[in-house]
Amino acid sequence: MAGGGKKKEVKKETGLGLSFRKDDNFGEWYSEVVVNGEMIEYYDISGCYILRPWAMSIWETMQTFFDAEIKKMRIKNCYFPLFVSSSVLEKEKDHVEGFAPEVAWVTKSGKSDLEIPIAIRPTSETVMYPYFSKWIRGHRDLPLKLNQWCNVVRWEFSNPTPFIRSREFLWQEGHTAFATKAEADEEVLQILELYRRIYEEFLAIPVIKGKKSEMEKFAGGLYTTSVEAFIPNTGRGIQGATSHCLGQNFAKMFEINFENEKGEKGMVWQNSWAYSTRTIGVMVMVHGDDKGLVLPPKIASVQVIVVPVPYKDADTRGIFDACADTVDALSKSGICAEADFRENYSPGWKYSHWEMKGVPLRIEIGPKDLANNQVRVVRRDNGAKVDISRVSLVEQVKDLLDIVQQSLFNTAKEKRDACVQVVKTWDEFKEALSQRKMILAPWCDEEEVEKDVKERTKGEMGAAKSLCSPFDQPELPEGTKCFASGKPAKKWTYWGRSY
Amino acid sequence: MAGGGKKKEVKKETGLGLSFRKDDNFGEWYSEVVVNGEMIEYYDISGCYILRPWAMSIWETMQTFFDAEIKKMRIKNCYFPLFVSSSVLEKEKDHVEGFAPEVAWVTKSGKSDLEIPIAIRPTSETVMYPYFSKWIRGHRDLPLKLNQWCNVVRWEFSNPTPFIRSREFLWQEGHTAFATKAEADEEVLQILELYRRIYEEFLAIPVIKGKKSEMEKFAGGLYTTSVEAFIPNTGRGIQGATSHCLGQNFAKMFEINFENEKGEKGMVWQNSWAYSTRTIGVMVMVHGDDKGLVLPPKIASVQVIVVPVPYKDADTRGIFDACADTVDALSKSGICAEADFRENYSPGWKYSHWEMKGVPLRIEIGPKDLANNQVRVVRRDNGAKVDISRVSLVEQVKDLLDIVQQSLFNTAKEKRDACVQVVKTWDEFKEALSQRKMILAPWCDEEEVEKDVKERTKGEMGAAKSLCSPFDQPELPEGTKCFASGKPAKKWTYWGRSY
Repeated sequence: MAGGGKKKEVKKETGLGLSFRKDDNFGEWYSEVVVNGEMIEYYDISGCYILRPWAMSIWETMQTFFDAEIKKMRIKNCYFPLFVSSSVLEKEKDHVEGFAPEVAWVTKSGKSDLEIPIAIRPTSETVMYPYFSKWIRGHRDLPLKLNQWCNVVRWEFSNPTPFIRSREFLWQEGHTAFATKAEADEEVLQILELYRRIYEEFLAIPVIKGKKSEMEKFAGGLYTTSVEAFIPNTGRGIQGATSHCLGQNFAKMFEINFENEKGEKGMVWQNSWAYSTRTIGVMVMVHGDDKGLVLPPKIASVQVIVVPVPYKDADTRGIFDACADTVDALSKSGICAEADFRENYSPGWKYSHWEMKGVPLRIEIGPKDLANNQVRVVRRDNGAKVDISRVSLVEQVKDLLDIVQQSLFNTAKEKRDACVQVVKTWDEFKEALSQRKMILAPWCDEEEVEKDVKERTKGEMGAAKSLCSPFDQPELPEGTKCFASGKPAKKWTYWGRSY
Repeated sequence: MAGGGKKKEVKKETGLGLSFRKDDNFGEWYSEVVVNGEMIEYYDISGCYILRPWAMSIWETMQTFFDAEIKKMRIKNCYFPLFVSSSVLEKEKDHVEGFAPEVAWVTKSGKSDLEIPIAIRPTSETVMYPYFSKWIRGHRDLPLKLNQWCNVVRWEFSNPTPFIRSREFLWQEGHTAFATKAEADEEVLQILELYRRIYEEFLAIPVIKGKKSEMEKFAGGLYTTSVEAFIPNTGRGIQGATSHCLGQNFAKMFEINFENEKGEKGMVWQNSWAYSTRTIGVMVMVHGDDKGLVLPPKIASVQVIVVPVPYKDADTRGIFDACADTVDALSKSGICAEADFRENYSPGWKYSHWEMKGVPLRIEIGPKDLANNQVRVVRRDNGAKVDISRVSLVEQVKDLLDIVQQSLFNTAKEKRDACVQVVKTWDEFKEALSQRKMILAPWCDEEEVEKDVKERTKGEMGAAKSLCSPFDQPELPEGTKCFASGKPAKKWTYWGRSY
């Protein structure tokens, strides 16, 4: 990565570049990179952000994948209203307690006061389930599997951050109902696997699949599974997406009953699951560097940017034609390629511009390249340069995109793995926490103990909490004690500070 | 159309069927058909409706088409916040006056009052344009062409109707800025043509392209073009979608300036354009009949429903296999086909069920069909039955779907055309209005005269207004007088009551 000195120089010259370095001031770096990379524009209402096309296209790519996968599972899209009446919102007590402080209320239309204030959905369990109750009568109405792509509003006051914590965000929310717990359990994991694939296969970010503690599970649900990512720079875990089994709690409150084949009455088993535009923020945090965004090829709307590098006395027309031909050849084989033919910008300015935007590969074509019937390819992730014959262009660019995708994942995984620390005692835990580690510790799995850990780690940086108990459990030898309580440990659990 | 007597009988027997006839009580028929057809569920907040998968899939089909078309035009998707501060909302006076009475206001979060009330977008001109001002500096930043798919809220009190007039609805809104009026003018019409295609090619509904009067144009814009549909049963026109040229009014208020190639300052020319889930309501109103929905094949998520018709002593297994094979063959060739294998429902019940849902073709397979290696195909639109050899199944079903699509359009056009009445005098106009016609009249194009027409036609049914001046103008002989004012007529204009 280039040093800060060089960056500032570039900035002075061209107005490009970042004024903060990722390792020096992560928070400011992040705010700057999402704006300068043209993903986000700050909005005049705090905690709300504009998603510019550069970010929106990433969301759409993930959406296309996920939507096709859930359609294969016979989950159907629908759209429920943005608004929910207070009486319905408050029906499931634990649930509403989890969301109540963040609910935005509409109280007026035009100049008139509404008769009753109306809430904006923070999530749609209570919006949807009265109708599940209406639609589900017998076993033939099951399973009921719905999804919607929509906006939700949580009026948080702490630390708004683009993508990561915003007052309005985009997500999908799936809501399903089954006759049996076994079916619900199975779907929870099928969906979680899709979330893993979004992170690992598309965003090139390693995640850990696991189960949330009782304290951290979804308000009103039975159990919560999640994919957990980690941001090495801040030493914080981040919940990537969640797939909840709601059990029968909501079914009870909303009277979602059915008659089975034998004519017996039963209550449905329900799931809900969601991932949001937060995914994009995690991707920026993990891959971005001091030159700007670094986009994995699979989610980049421009995978290859072609820049002509003319010299005074050279065949400019030939160079421009070669650039156009290159874009043409790549586009025809399904690679998203564009050329930057803008006048009045130097090649150097263009390099910086497209580096800031994180385009995975840059192709430069100058007089020498033209003469040799080759192009120069520069990787955004590591700056490596390679000359490619135009004869084997498409094939080699395809390979390179695959390599960059895999390499981003591998690098992120190495960095993440280097942050994982196994501890067995409270002292080791404290030490690892001060080093901003993602801590794997044997735990007794008692809610009181987690509360105690939170209490004992309070401070400026925020308290530690459990992130998840990974499905992939290391061996837990008989007699292993809980790192925090000294009681017999029941499982390995990841702990740390988190977003 | 089957008579009401038969309908009621079916309803008694099976719980299916409609209790209202389209020609007898259109309003009740419509409410019933969208619910029984499983498109809509009424919601506990008035004016808000649940879009069920049967409706949502239609929206998605149109979205896929339109999104691909605007991407070809290099229009990019983005997402701006749901919320807008009052100071920004009120910046363009004419515009805000058009929307102010319908704006929903958030005044509380959790239990706290917000410092300043925040509006929910009724449309996003004022949300977006402060940022257009920021992003557009020079001619190289133009054109700026953005679109978003989102929900908007207009807290209307009059006569909420599913799809047609709801307090929250889904739409796309395009917002573009150009250096010249000529570019803006051109795009207005390109988009309008896409809207025409949505109505005519997908929804099989004839529309008239034209320009809105000064009274009916978009608040704050320069001129508005629209596609206008007509509902024969109610004799009301309905604005199908609008493509506005905003001129430079918003550019002035929001200071959206740029420097051209010569270094001169200029203001941008802007457009905005939108179509909404209203499209689905128009489709239901135009094609639906006394048996339920009638879906054009191009937007039906199930185009062919296959129903086994077993007899006691027949080869039931063979029939079921033939149904499965049929679905398989059709699916493989890209036709959306499903079989209804449910037990405990008679074939007759299934026929009614899928007729209610409007599936374009029903295939019945009974013992005789099996023996003859054929299937019986029944058209939803006209009930026509035809036996098809399984040898040429796919080909013939494809042809039939095309025929049904075209036939729905032709029938709708014949009915619409029969409602168009050319008038030249006020007396003829009054007479045609009382006959619920779509009236084409020569007009002086004066705002005062339109106000006067409204005033003079006030009444229980609602006043008449101008629908549009069609681009396709009949000849207007020299000396033709305005139907309402007697002044010289400037153009032919459609008039009528409207939604």
